[in-house]
Amino acid sequence: MQNSTLKPARKERLADTVYGQILDEITAGRFTSGDKLPSEAELSHSFAVSRPVVREALLRLTTDGLIQSRRGIGTFVSTRPSSRLTELAKTSELSSYLRSFEPRIVLEVEAARLAAQRRTRADLDRAHAAIEALRVAIASGQRGQEQDIEFHDAVARAAGNEYFCDLLNDLRQPVTETMNIGLELARERSPGRRLRIIEEHTRILDAIAAEDSDAAASYMKYHLMQARAAVLDARHLENSQALDIAPRARG
Amino acid sequence: MQNSTLKPARKERLADTVYGQILDEITAGRFTSGDKLPSEAELSHSFAVSRPVVREALLRLTTDGLIQSRRGIGTFVSTRPSSRLTELAKTSELSSYLRSFEPRIVLEVEAARLAAQRRTRADLDRAHAAIEALRVAIASGQRGQEQDIEFHDAVARAAGNEYFCDLLNDLRQPVTETMNIGLELARERSPGRRLRIIEEHTRILDAIAAEDSDAAASYMKYHLMQARAAVLDARHLENSQALDIAPRARG
Amino acid sequence: MQNSTLKPARKERLADTVYGQILDEITAGRFTSGDKLPSEAELSHSFAVSRPVVREALLRLTTDGLIQSRRGIGTFVSTRPSSRLTELAKTSELSSYLRSFEPRIVLEVEAARLAAQRRTRADLDRAHAAIEALRVAIASGQRGQEQDIEFHDAVARAAGNEYFCDLLNDLRQPVTETMNIGLELARERSPGRRLRIIEEHTRILDAIAAEDSDAAASYMKYHLMQARAAVLDARHLENSQALDIAPRARG
Amino acid sequence: MQNSTLKPARKERLADTVYGQILDEITAGRFTSGDKLPSEAELSHSFAVSRPVVREALLRLTTDGLIQSRRGIGTFVSTRPSSRLTELAKTSELSSYLRSFEPRIVLEVEAARLAAQRRTRADLDRAHAAIEALRVAIASGQRGQEQDIEFHDAVARAAGNEYFCDLLNDLRQPVTETMNIGLELARERSPGRRLRIIEEHTRILDAIAAEDSDAAASYMKYHLMQARAAVLDARHLENSQALDIAPRARG
Repeated sequence: MQNSTLKPARKERLADTVYGQILDEITAGRFTSGDKLPSEAELSHSFAVSRPVVREALLRLTTDGLIQSRRGIGTFVSTRPSSRLTELAKTSELSSYLRSFEPRIVLEVEAARLAAQRRTRADLDRAHAAIEALRVAIASGQRGQEQDIEFHDAVARAAGNEYFCDLLNDLRQPVTETMNIGLELARERSPGRRLRIIEEHTRILDAIAAEDSDAAASYMKYHLMQARAAVLDARHLENSQALDIAPRARG
Repeated sequence: MQNSTLKPARKERLADTVYGQILDEITAGRFTSGDKLPSEAELSHSFAVSRPVVREALLRLTTDGLIQSRRGIGTFVSTRPSSRLTELAKTSELSSYLRSFEPRIVLEVEAARLAAQRRTRADLDRAHAAIEALRVAIASGQRGQEQDIEFHDAVARAAGNEYFCDLLNDLRQPVTETMNIGLELARERSPGRRLRIIEEHTRILDAIAAEDSDAAASYMKYHLMQARAAVLDARHLENSQALDIAPRARG
Repeated sequence: MQNSTLKPARKERLADTVYGQILDEITAGRFTSGDKLPSEAELSHSFAVSRPVVREALLRLTTDGLIQSRRGIGTFVSTRPSSRLTELAKTSELSSYLRSFEPRIVLEVEAARLAAQRRTRADLDRAHAAIEALRVAIASGQRGQEQDIEFHDAVARAAGNEYFCDLLNDLRQPVTETMNIGLELARERSPGRRLRIIEEHTRILDAIAAEDSDAAASYMKYHLMQARAAVLDARHLENSQALDIAPRARG
Repeated sequence: MQNSTLKPARKERLADTVYGQILDEITAGRFTSGDKLPSEAELSHSFAVSRPVVREALLRLTTDGLIQSRRGIGTFVSTRPSSRLTELAKTSELSSYLRSFEPRIVLEVEAARLAAQRRTRADLDRAHAAIEALRVAIASGQRGQEQDIEFHDAVARAAGNEYFCDLLNDLRQPVTETMNIGLELARERSPGRRLRIIEEHTRILDAIAAEDSDAAASYMKYHLMQARAAVLDARHLENSQALDIAPRARG
């Protein structure tokens, strides 16, 4: 495989652009939650791209929880992300950044599983120090992305297989971008989400320390799924009505 | 289920008893967090059982996060469960109840995965009604275990395969016992844990509604791992120091 | 959950019947490989059942690899099972039998994973004896289903958790039915498939003996997927053109 | 990938060397199947390395199925790989090559799962052409590693996420090395193993074509586990006594 494969195919890049354009409409409130989106044919016409490109963009928006299709009825907006999102990232690049979670999740989950079997005392100390530094950073109002990355590096290193470190290093750029967005949105919001970030990391480390592979893998998976959801605020319930103790009506 | 197979072998039952005896010592504070346990030989002598029985009991206490062994040094108590635990259940039966989580987790995780692919509108409504009823029950100071069971039944039914319902039905007794303990301990504590219970159920249902199999499976797994941990309060961080925003020293 | 839940709902039972009727047509050669099936509306009319029932039956036939739908074109027969199948089982019950693989696979895969961690010498001996007995049975022209069941019981027992044995016992009837069909079809065919059955069991046991949880789980999963496929001879490549060393055209 | 992270730590490299030295002894027949290995202390003395380095090397030999430890008794040789192995690769590098399977398996298994959901007609055609080319290559006595790589690339591409292609590209060197060894050993042996290689690839592709994510993932995992085992001929039963239909004694 040559360098050429490092770039996504043209269709994929066009779909990223269309994804960004629809996301802009949603973020700006021109398509709002519950709204029916225009048909594939209409979107293909408006954005001047082929229907397979539109279909690909819609598929990704669905995967990311921003829209939902109901068979035979149409496609609807399900979430409106923070308006800050468009300031924190180019919407045309978000789709690509989010796609990096697919390989990242399987790599980090496996690294956590192996770390629970192979970690040394030094590995645990390093990961623990990273969490403490993250706690301090967050408490003092910083994003803490360096400390967050340091924790994930410590886990990868504890897996005792240098390939995990190398491969995650190759994903460094999209990982850093999504981490910045997620941590920044958390920083600006309720202390609840910030506490959760510390808690999720601690739980992973505790499972690794207890040599519980299955728990380490599950908690890492949960953490990364939350991290992905946090970027778009989609299907991310921490401050949703789910937390009201009072009964609520379902939309 | 034939009766003959319902009883664990003699060694297993003895190990359950020894498990309960050690747990009693921990809960009563005679062995406390950080304490080194007596050796296998000493425990075998005190409890008048063979060493394989002691080893089996220690293995389960380790799996349940109550003790931790450090190679070449010894075995240490890692958590002290609520003293209420011994009032809520016979400690000699707790090991068996907790063991039911092993098959329960794989069955319910698969049911959630399939439910995301096959659920009907009626399935979603039933599960949603169960969560709302659980919210009301918890808000009015009840345990809510009927509503909790109703939710899990609704997910199993949404899997579109009657075997899941039948098999979970066969696990009804230990599931009810552990649910009672976990919900009762949550009821007596901070509202935080109670809110989490609602949130965890909502997240599973949202993933099923969104037809996201992988998320539904992961969130169900996370929920059941938390439920298991809640019974013993072990490795259960919700109200641990992990949530202090201030730096802490690690033991 | 009451006894009533032990029976599938009426829609499910009707779907099983329609599944059996379509399967009869395929087995009898009235619908053959590559043929387009009548539309949902036509099938609903012919079998005098509602369209959701037809849809459910088609969904299961697809899951079982007997038919395949191509978006916007129609549904096509993909495999013709052995004509012996209709002699070995009532086609109206096959769908239910096959459905038992869904919980069975997750339970036995988890049992194999735990067995690799907890098996005693006696467990290994019992499982090994079962494989040797299966080898003898097959070599002397018998089906060997008792020996096959004995092996799977031995693995469940080695998991050190009596609930696995109990739950698999509850699945005994559909497991025995599908095992009989699969082993009988293997018995009547090339020695290749019979050798594979021995090999698949041996591989699982070797992984359990080597305390390799991940391999034990993967090999059990592979074995049960092959067992399910063997019942219908669908997507079951052992004697397909895939084994011709010469290039072939794809249909 | 930054160069600094490409190199394993010093301890890891030393462990690779010791792994290679012990493997040399086994391949040359100086330690044979069933033999007890010298103790950690003795090995540490013979190879003039620290005991943690010896322990790490033994751990990897165990993971790779070459040796087996029995608690309290000692460590035993379990398999003697082909003597051709030492001609095909430097034994000091084998450990590192084999380690690449850990991230490779999770990446390719996830790629296969996603490919079953997203593959286009062109993806299927490309993967099918690769299998046909592999069949021709093998039939004419070649190794076929280019065609084998082409198949795996086609699956990664079908996952519709360019990161999978990029990351697997980063693993290209160890993947090519292990593939060469496995295919060369298969080429020199019975046609059975060569047929299996074609069959395993076909089964993956059939599951992807049938949009069966779970089967695609399982078959890919099985295939890669077989591929890893094939390098060392360890726990690789294809031509073992397991295939004799006659009863055998267990060692």
